[in-house]
Amino acid sequence: MLASQIKEEGRNPRYLSTLKLPEKVKVTSQIDEALAGAEIVVLAVPSHAMRQITKTINPLIKQKVVVLSLAKGIEEGTFCRMSEVVEEELRSRIKTKIAVLSGPNHAEEVAQNIPTATVVACGDIKIAQFLQRIFMTSWFRVYTNDDVIGVELGGATKNVIAIAAGISDGLGFGDNTKASLMTRGLAEMIRLGLVMGARRETFAGLSGVGDLIATCTSRHSRNRAVGERLGKGESLAKILKEMRMVAEGVRTTKAVYQMALRHGIEMPITESVYQVLYENKNPRDCVEDLMKRGATSEIK
Amino acid sequence: MLASQIKEEGRNPRYLSTLKLPEKVKVTSQIDEALAGAEIVVLAVPSHAMRQITKTINPLIKQKVVVLSLAKGIEEGTFCRMSEVVEEELRSRIKTKIAVLSGPNHAEEVAQNIPTATVVACGDIKIAQFLQRIFMTSWFRVYTNDDVIGVELGGATKNVIAIAAGISDGLGFGDNTKASLMTRGLAEMIRLGLVMGARRETFAGLSGVGDLIATCTSRHSRNRAVGERLGKGESLAKILKEMRMVAEGVRTTKAVYQMALRHGIEMPITESVYQVLYENKNPRDCVEDLMKRGATSEIK
Repeated sequence: MLASQIKEEGRNPRYLSTLKLPEKVKVTSQIDEALAGAEIVVLAVPSHAMRQITKTINPLIKQKVVVLSLAKGIEEGTFCRMSEVVEEELRSRIKTKIAVLSGPNHAEEVAQNIPTATVVACGDIKIAQFLQRIFMTSWFRVYTNDDVIGVELGGATKNVIAIAAGISDGLGFGDNTKASLMTRGLAEMIRLGLVMGARRETFAGLSGVGDLIATCTSRHSRNRAVGERLGKGESLAKILKEMRMVAEGVRTTKAVYQMALRHGIEMPITESVYQVLYENKNPRDCVEDLMKRGATSEIK
Repeated sequence: MLASQIKEEGRNPRYLSTLKLPEKVKVTSQIDEALAGAEIVVLAVPSHAMRQITKTINPLIKQKVVVLSLAKGIEEGTFCRMSEVVEEELRSRIKTKIAVLSGPNHAEEVAQNIPTATVVACGDIKIAQFLQRIFMTSWFRVYTNDDVIGVELGGATKNVIAIAAGISDGLGFGDNTKASLMTRGLAEMIRLGLVMGARRETFAGLSGVGDLIATCTSRHSRNRAVGERLGKGESLAKILKEMRMVAEGVRTTKAVYQMALRHGIEMPITESVYQVLYENKNPRDCVEDLMKRGATSEIK
């Protein structure tokens, strides 16, 4: 229904509805039609839908297809990264190459050809370079990286810190507060990443710091917006009820918090966001608790 | 004259003029009076004034004084960091300990007790911890670091990237553009830092990413404001004439650009800012040139 409407109007009435779609884009709601003959399959779905989608496409894709995931989340319960979900479900297709794309890429701006940069990561750097050639334009600059774990974890965990940054905004704190929270949040993201096998440098890149900045400082960010409303005193239930699009960070916070517990990683900001979201803690008390922690070094 | 006015009114009519100064603050324009018996000397002066000030205080300070520099710049011509200037000028005082403080700390907000974090660096970590105890409050959270080079270079070089971010704002680009520029700017800061002996991790901290974020995204930042006006087509001469306070980044850009040339470090964003500031290059052409550079990896 939505597909036929998009086909007719040449635009999507639900998302970015003023954007005229290029004529080369073929719209279909039939997954076998979408996949027929595809050499690259781009999975742009919410994280919680990734497993079901990959199960569905498994029998329909070619042996040598390249699969590119754009999802930024961690699967609840399993703590799988999105490329791990894809790999598990498509594992019978041994020649399938899985890559991920992440970065400071608000769709609202990319759709308007506003200059931006992004990163494509794949364990096989040749595949990353192949996708770089495909997606690079004069306004969309693609970098490569071979650290899939780091790129995916950055994209997912930054949403937790974006909720914290939003809470700070909602409470009326300043630019100093937010920059401090983001930086100490990045330190948590790195600690988790190192334990999971990511490289530290990746978090200083587009999928780490870059996406963190774009998410924490932009009016386009849904995760920051959730935080801001929490900071102003609204309940999570009310906020989620009124949002049509997914704020991945709400789910990701639970997953990251549980991963931190399991691995014994100190993540005080993540823990605070978890307590606000799931244990009804007062946001203002969280900020106070964070400021009152023992004196420490930046570099432990 | 200003000093007596501040003493009389209990506030500084020129800077943060609505702020009531604490009664414990003693105001003087006599440098020997300011230094008499001091155990800690805090140097909060513009970078270009640092050498003259330290020359002046050299005969007046105690042998065992701790000197803390807040300046964020690089000396023109010599390419000295501020702590190097201090060390050169006070070198006869061999027991003097030199530390630096840097971070996402807009004075406008710190003065209002808005929560923020900062980092104090000293080669002697015990001195850093001593200053941490002195400056830490429930709204000003101090971390320590022993990487003086990294902390100082972060604080100085981020001003160059802030001008670039401002230019992007002035040209009307988006949140994606700015986050991308900041991230690739950080990559340049790190490349320079590593050659100069800094640690990579420091740039992911409060004096690197933290200060970069606070400077590039805040209405309080003079460097970002200079960039924004350049992006809108104003001339540098006109902008500087109308600013009362120092935009350190204008001077720092020249120093950093020359350091990059000397050491053969690739710093395309810094080079672009240099060309806009000193060679009259059109800002819009710079963005285009940056986007059109050859395809590359994040991690070379």
